[in-house]
Amino acid sequence: MAKSLSDLHCSVARSLDVIGERWTMLVLRDAFNGLTKFEEFAESLPIARNILAARLKTLVDHGVLEREQYQERPPRYAYHLTKKGADLYPVLIALFNWGDEYLAGSDGPPVLLAHHECDHSAARPESVVVCTGCGEHLAPRDVRRTYRRPRARTR
Amino acid sequence: MAKSLSDLHCSVARSLDVIGERWTMLVLRDAFNGLTKFEEFAESLPIARNILAARLKTLVDHGVLEREQYQERPPRYAYHLTKKGADLYPVLIALFNWGDEYLAGSDGPPVLLAHHECDHSAARPESVVVCTGCGEHLAPRDVRRTYRRPRARTR
Repeated sequence: MAKSLSDLHCSVARSLDVIGERWTMLVLRDAFNGLTKFEEFAESLPIARNILAARLKTLVDHGVLEREQYQERPPRYAYHLTKKGADLYPVLIALFNWGDEYLAGSDGPPVLLAHHECDHSAARPESVVVCTGCGEHLAPRDVRRTYRRPRARTR
Repeated sequence: MAKSLSDLHCSVARSLDVIGERWTMLVLRDAFNGLTKFEEFAESLPIARNILAARLKTLVDHGVLEREQYQERPPRYAYHLTKKGADLYPVLIALFNWGDEYLAGSDGPPVLLAHHECDHSAARPESVVVCTGCGEHLAPRDVRRTYRRPRARTR
């Protein structure tokens, strides 16, 4: 019991160990929206500054964000998504899509996303599961799993 | 401060309010893997039974899982993904892909996924962000946002 997520033999659990803490995905949402400075994140998110600082530190420690000093006196830092961080875009958009679809309420989605270069007015960015071989859209029933170690328990 | 995620004017925050609790995505992982019974989830996940029961109740309350009684004495229940739950597949696979890519360690990914009907040996299911209009793969820079209410703060 009470094992760390990172100890589980599962890529989903290991991902959640890095980005699954409360507020972390909203820090990343803001980073994808172009925010970089501590004060910008603090303005955007309704959390205590020490919590924000802890979340940013975790993301820097795991190489999801990189920290850059942009002012010496007093020291000020900016945070930028690394390649590892930018590769979380499908997670973010999948959460975005699902919230739009099921949790938007009568006033509709809070934010509309659109593809700059696409002229279909109803088009939107969407996270979909595809096969990297044939490009087909996949449902869970289309996918088989192979466990690479003896699996008495999935933990 | 200390606002509920569901109060935020953001679909990502609202999604996390439903599925962002610790262990919830692993309950859903197991549901996608075909587990349905309480005892099966309890066997799979290294968490206390009361925590598991609370997570399952939250998911049922939000219509992500539906509960079905399959035995009367003693009462026993099975949990099945609803359409709303099944639509979380891109979130799960995105977390899976990212963990495989960045957190697998020297022994490689713990579980290999493959598309049943595809004969490319290196192919795998992948969550990607595409435009529903033109089908193009999208990066954050390809996407513009429109806020549907005056936005003094993103919260």
